[in-house]
Amino acid sequence: MADIPAKTEIGVTTGPIRGSRKIHVGPLQVAMRAIDLDPSSGEAPLNVYDTSGPYTDPNARIDIMAGLSPLRRDWIVGRGDVESYDARELRPEDNGQLGPDRSGGVQPFPNVVKRPLRAKAGANVSQMHYARRGIITPEMEYVAIRENMGREMLRGHIRDGEDFGASIPDYVTPEFVRDEVARGRAIIPSNINHPESEPMAIGRNFLVKINANIGNSAVASNVAAEVDKLVWSIRWGADTVMDLSTGRNIHDTREWIIRNSPVPIGTVPIYQALEKVGGIAEELTWEIFRDTLIEQAEQGVDYFTIHAGVRLPYIPMTAKRVTGIVSRGGSIMAKWCLSHHRESFLYEHFDEITEIMKAYDIAYSLGDGLRPGSIADANDEAQFSELYTLGELTHRAWAQDVQVMIEGPGHVPMHKIKENMDKQLQVCGEAPFYTLGPLTTDIAPGYDHITSGIGAAMIGWFGCAMLCYVTPKEHLGLPDRDDVKVGVVTYKLAAHAADLAKGHPAAKLRDDALSRARFDFRWRDQFNLSLDPDTAEDYHDQTLPAEGAKTAHFCSMCGPKFCSMKITAEVREFAAKQNAGVETFLAAGDAEKGMAEMSDKFREKGGEVYLPAE
Amino acid sequence: MADIPAKTEIGVTTGPIRGSRKIHVGPLQVAMRAIDLDPSSGEAPLNVYDTSGPYTDPNARIDIMAGLSPLRRDWIVGRGDVESYDARELRPEDNGQLGPDRSGGVQPFPNVVKRPLRAKAGANVSQMHYARRGIITPEMEYVAIRENMGREMLRGHIRDGEDFGASIPDYVTPEFVRDEVARGRAIIPSNINHPESEPMAIGRNFLVKINANIGNSAVASNVAAEVDKLVWSIRWGADTVMDLSTGRNIHDTREWIIRNSPVPIGTVPIYQALEKVGGIAEELTWEIFRDTLIEQAEQGVDYFTIHAGVRLPYIPMTAKRVTGIVSRGGSIMAKWCLSHHRESFLYEHFDEITEIMKAYDIAYSLGDGLRPGSIADANDEAQFSELYTLGELTHRAWAQDVQVMIEGPGHVPMHKIKENMDKQLQVCGEAPFYTLGPLTTDIAPGYDHITSGIGAAMIGWFGCAMLCYVTPKEHLGLPDRDDVKVGVVTYKLAAHAADLAKGHPAAKLRDDALSRARFDFRWRDQFNLSLDPDTAEDYHDQTLPAEGAKTAHFCSMCGPKFCSMKITAEVREFAAKQNAGVETFLAAGDAEKGMAEMSDKFREKGGEVYLPAE
Repeated sequence: MADIPAKTEIGVTTGPIRGSRKIHVGPLQVAMRAIDLDPSSGEAPLNVYDTSGPYTDPNARIDIMAGLSPLRRDWIVGRGDVESYDARELRPEDNGQLGPDRSGGVQPFPNVVKRPLRAKAGANVSQMHYARRGIITPEMEYVAIRENMGREMLRGHIRDGEDFGASIPDYVTPEFVRDEVARGRAIIPSNINHPESEPMAIGRNFLVKINANIGNSAVASNVAAEVDKLVWSIRWGADTVMDLSTGRNIHDTREWIIRNSPVPIGTVPIYQALEKVGGIAEELTWEIFRDTLIEQAEQGVDYFTIHAGVRLPYIPMTAKRVTGIVSRGGSIMAKWCLSHHRESFLYEHFDEITEIMKAYDIAYSLGDGLRPGSIADANDEAQFSELYTLGELTHRAWAQDVQVMIEGPGHVPMHKIKENMDKQLQVCGEAPFYTLGPLTTDIAPGYDHITSGIGAAMIGWFGCAMLCYVTPKEHLGLPDRDDVKVGVVTYKLAAHAADLAKGHPAAKLRDDALSRARFDFRWRDQFNLSLDPDTAEDYHDQTLPAEGAKTAHFCSMCGPKFCSMKITAEVREFAAKQNAGVETFLAAGDAEKGMAEMSDKFREKGGEVYLPAE
Repeated sequence: MADIPAKTEIGVTTGPIRGSRKIHVGPLQVAMRAIDLDPSSGEAPLNVYDTSGPYTDPNARIDIMAGLSPLRRDWIVGRGDVESYDARELRPEDNGQLGPDRSGGVQPFPNVVKRPLRAKAGANVSQMHYARRGIITPEMEYVAIRENMGREMLRGHIRDGEDFGASIPDYVTPEFVRDEVARGRAIIPSNINHPESEPMAIGRNFLVKINANIGNSAVASNVAAEVDKLVWSIRWGADTVMDLSTGRNIHDTREWIIRNSPVPIGTVPIYQALEKVGGIAEELTWEIFRDTLIEQAEQGVDYFTIHAGVRLPYIPMTAKRVTGIVSRGGSIMAKWCLSHHRESFLYEHFDEITEIMKAYDIAYSLGDGLRPGSIADANDEAQFSELYTLGELTHRAWAQDVQVMIEGPGHVPMHKIKENMDKQLQVCGEAPFYTLGPLTTDIAPGYDHITSGIGAAMIGWFGCAMLCYVTPKEHLGLPDRDDVKVGVVTYKLAAHAADLAKGHPAAKLRDDALSRARFDFRWRDQFNLSLDPDTAEDYHDQTLPAEGAKTAHFCSMCGPKFCSMKITAEVREFAAKQNAGVETFLAAGDAEKGMAEMSDKFREKGGEVYLPAE
C-alpha cells in the first residue's frame, strides 16, 4: 500500500489492497478483486465485491486534477434521450461567499463540465423508467454481474438463512435487476452527469450496502482531506458516499468529490440552500431550494436527501421528546414551517422536485427529519407520522418513474427495531430502506460505531437495504481518517453478518474460506481474506512479529504445545486412520451404539491408538 | 485518574472514574458509584452499578502485596459450617516447574493463607444449598441491593421491553434472589476461600453480566501485567474475570489475581492439569485433575469451567467440521478420549467433582468444548449433542445443590442465535447461559469484539445471563491493556443494550439522563454518564479542545449556527409560548385538524412567530 501524492496537495491512497488483485469481468469489465490463496490450500482465488474503483488498480492512472474516466458516458449518450446545455452559472453564494471577504480558499476543480446533460424535453432518463418499459440498461447488466460473485458455483445448493419474506434469487440475472428496479424494490443511483460511477444496486434482494458520510463543516474545512476520505472510505468498502458539507466552499468541494468518485454520491441539498440564506432557516424559499437542486444535479449528485415528510402538523409532536428533532434537515424544515406557520415547501412542491429528479436520474432518499435521537424517543408518534407521509411520497415519486429509498433511524432499542422495518416495508411498498444504525443504547459515546453496528446488523437482516455508517466520533467530534476506516469496516461486517443471516447464496463462501485458512494456519490467507488485512496482520505481529510465525502451526494465544486446532487436526487424522472411522459413528445414529462399535473395532485392531498409515 | 504504583513492580490504576463518586449503600455497605450532574439540570445524582471494587475509592488503602480486605469472611465463618485445615502443599509442577531449570520468575504472593476453609464433614456451603433451605444469606441481600439501583423511583412505571418469557421483577428483594438461586436460575459465585469478593448474581432475571479473560500464556508471561489487567478490566465494568493462564507460574499468578480481586474469578482447571503432565493430554488422569481442583479450590477460585460434556461418542462428529474443535479444554479432552478410547474422566467422575464444589461453594461453568469455531459449524450435531449432556449434568449438580451455569458459543450467524438460547433454556432447566459472543461472521479478524458484540447483545436480549468478552486481538494475538478496555466497554454496551431491550426496569434511566445531557449541551454530564468518560472527552477535544467548548451550546459536527438541537430548543420554546401549544395539537388527534387550529391561534395572536414571554 503506497501513498502516491497527486500533482497537487491532494494526495490519496492508491495501490492494491493487501493480498488482493484487481480483476475486470466480462464485456462490461465489471470491477472486482480476487484474493489468491496459498497453493497448499488447493483452493481457487476468491472473488469479492469491490467498491474501491480504479484507485486499487495498479494499471490505472490516477489524476485527481482530471478526475476519473467516464465509464458510463457512452451508455448514457447512446440511449439518445439526453441533450447537453449551458450549465447554470456559478455564483459566490454557491460556495458560501456571501460577503467580499469570505474567501474559502478551495481552488475550483480544473476540469468542470460546462455543458452538462439532461433529459430531452418530455423524456425521463431514470433507470426505473427504462425498467418499466422492459429495457435492460448496461447499468442493470453491470449490477447483475457485480452482485453475482460466487453464486454460479453454488447453484443447486441448499440455502441457509431466514430472509423475512425477501425474494433473494439463487442467481442474479439482468432481468431480475430490471424487475426489481421496475417495481421500486431496488434503485441504481446514477445521475447522468456522474458517468464516472460504477453501477450498483440498493435493494432488499441484493447484498446489503453501506454508506459513509464525509464533508466539510463550519468549524473544519479542507478539500484535500475530504477527497482523501472519499478514496479511503471506498477502499474499505463504502458503497456510496454522502457529502454532508456545510459552511464554505460547498460547491467546489462537491465537484472535487464527484469527479473523483466511482461510487454514487448523495447530498442533503437543504444544507447548501441554508448557507445561501446566511443560515437563517426562515429565509429559505422554494426558488432558492429549486436552484440548488439544479446546481447539484448538473454536478452529478446521484441521490438527494429530501426531508419532505417533515410536515407542519407533526412538528409539535416532538416537543415532548427527550431529544426533540436531531436531524439537521428536519430541524431546518421544522423551523421554517413553524416560523411561517405553513406547510413545508418540500412537501408542497414535491411533484416539481420529482420532475427535476427524472431529468437527471437522481434518486430520492426521503429523509427522516423526525427520527428519534434517543432511546426514549424511538418509534413514537412523530417518527411514524413522518414515515406514513414518506410512504405517500414514495408512491407519488413512483408515479413519475423516479427511484426512491427511505431513510430510517437513528436510536432504537433492539426490541423496537423490527417494527421499524416491518412498517417501512408495508407503508413504502418495499422501497429500499436506508438507516443510520440504529444505535441500540445512548450510553456509549466514543463507541457508537458499535452501539449502532448492533442495530445495523439486525435491521440489515430484517430487510434494510443500506446502512449508513456511524463512526467512533459520533456525537462528539468530526471523524478523521482513522475514524472513517473504523466506521466503514464496522458497517461492512454488520452488512455481511446480515447477508449471512438472510441466506444470501454466496455470502458464506468468504467466511468458510477464511475459517479453513484459520484452521490450516494459513496466516497470510487469513489476513488477506479479512475485511482489513492491514489491521489483522498488525495485530498478529504485535505478539509474534517474526516472519516465521506467519507459517507457524500455532499462534500466540496458546503457544506451540497447547493449540486446540493442532489437537483437532490430530483428532481428525486419528479418525481418518480408523478404517470405518467417522462413517461408522455417524451412521450409527445412536451415539452409544457407535461408541460400542468403535470400541470393538479398536480392540480388533490390537488396541493401538495410532495405527500405522496403510 | 492516577497511576499509583504499589510498593513492588506491580502497579495498578486507582482513583475515581472520571466524574463518579464511590458510595456505599445500606448496612451491608454495597458499593456503587454516583454520577453527579450539573446543577443546571436539576437532576439528582445517578447511581450506577459498579464492579471496580476499592480501587476507585479514594478512601481505600490499596496494597497489592497484602490483597484486599476479606469482606465476606465474617459471614462465611458466622454460618458455623466451615472448618480450616492445612492447605495442600505447593509443588513445583503447580507452577509448571517440571525440571530444575525452568524457573518462571514470578515471586510468590507474600500473604498466602496456609489454612483455607472447607465445609465441615457432611456440610454443603453452596449458596444454592442455603437458598433451598430457605436461608437468605448476606450474599443474597448484597445482590438484591446491588441489582436494584434506580428501581425504587420507578415503581408503578409501565415496563417497555420484550423479555422472551423471563421473570424480571419490578423490585429485587432478598427473597427473590434466594428463590432464583434455589431453583438454579441464578448463581452467586462465591468460594468461601475468596472472601474478598463483592457478591454478584448471574441469571436471566438479573442485569446481564460480562466476563473478561486475562492470563499468562506460554509465549508471554508477566504477573504484574495480569494483575494490572484484572484491575483495569473491572474498572471498566467486568463482572467476573477468568484467569486463563497457561504455561509457567500458573499457581502463583492466580494467587496474586484472587487476593486482589473484588469480582469472582473463574478458571479452566484442565489447563493447569495439562501443564502438570508436560502438555501431553494422554497422560492426564483423574487423580491429577482432582488434585488440581483442590489446589485451586483452596486458593479461592469461584467457578470452574469443566468440559464434562465432551463425551467420546461426540468427538467423531467434529471430524467433518470446517474448524473441528476450537475449545482448548474440549480438544484436550477429545485427545484424551480418543487416545484411551474411553469415556471422559470428567464425565465419569462428575459426581465426585460436585462433592468438591459443594465443600467450597464453587460454581460449575459447564464448558462447551465442542462449540463451533466458524459460521459453517454453528448449531451442528456435535454442539447440540454436548448441550444435551450439559443439561443432564446440570440436573446432576443440582441434585447436590451445587450452582451451575452453562457455557455457549462461539461463532453463530444471527439467524441461528435464538435456537441456541431456546435449546439451552429448555435442556438446562433455565440454568444461566454464559456465551462467548457469539461472533456473527468470520471475516473480520481485528474487529471480532464487534462481530461478537452483535451476537452478544442479541443473545443477552434473548436470555443469556453473562457474556464473555472478545477483544480486537481475538484469533490474532494476546490482548494488551487497551484491548482489554475496548473488549470490556464493547461488552458492557452490548449487555446494556440487552437490558434495555428486555425491559429491565431501571436500565433506561442512564440512557435518558445521558440523552437529556446531550440535548442540553451539558457536555461534562454527557461524558460522565457514558461508559468511558475518558474516551468521550478525548474524542470531543480532538475537534474542539478549548475548555469553553465544553459549555458551548453547539458541537463540532454542525458548528454554532447550524445545530439541530439548538433549532429544536427554539421549536420547543415556540411551542411552549403558544398558549394551548402542544396540547392542542396532540389532543386534536387528527393532525390536519390540529394544524388548522394552530393556524387560527397563530393568526389570533397577530402572526408574530416569537411572542414575547409573558
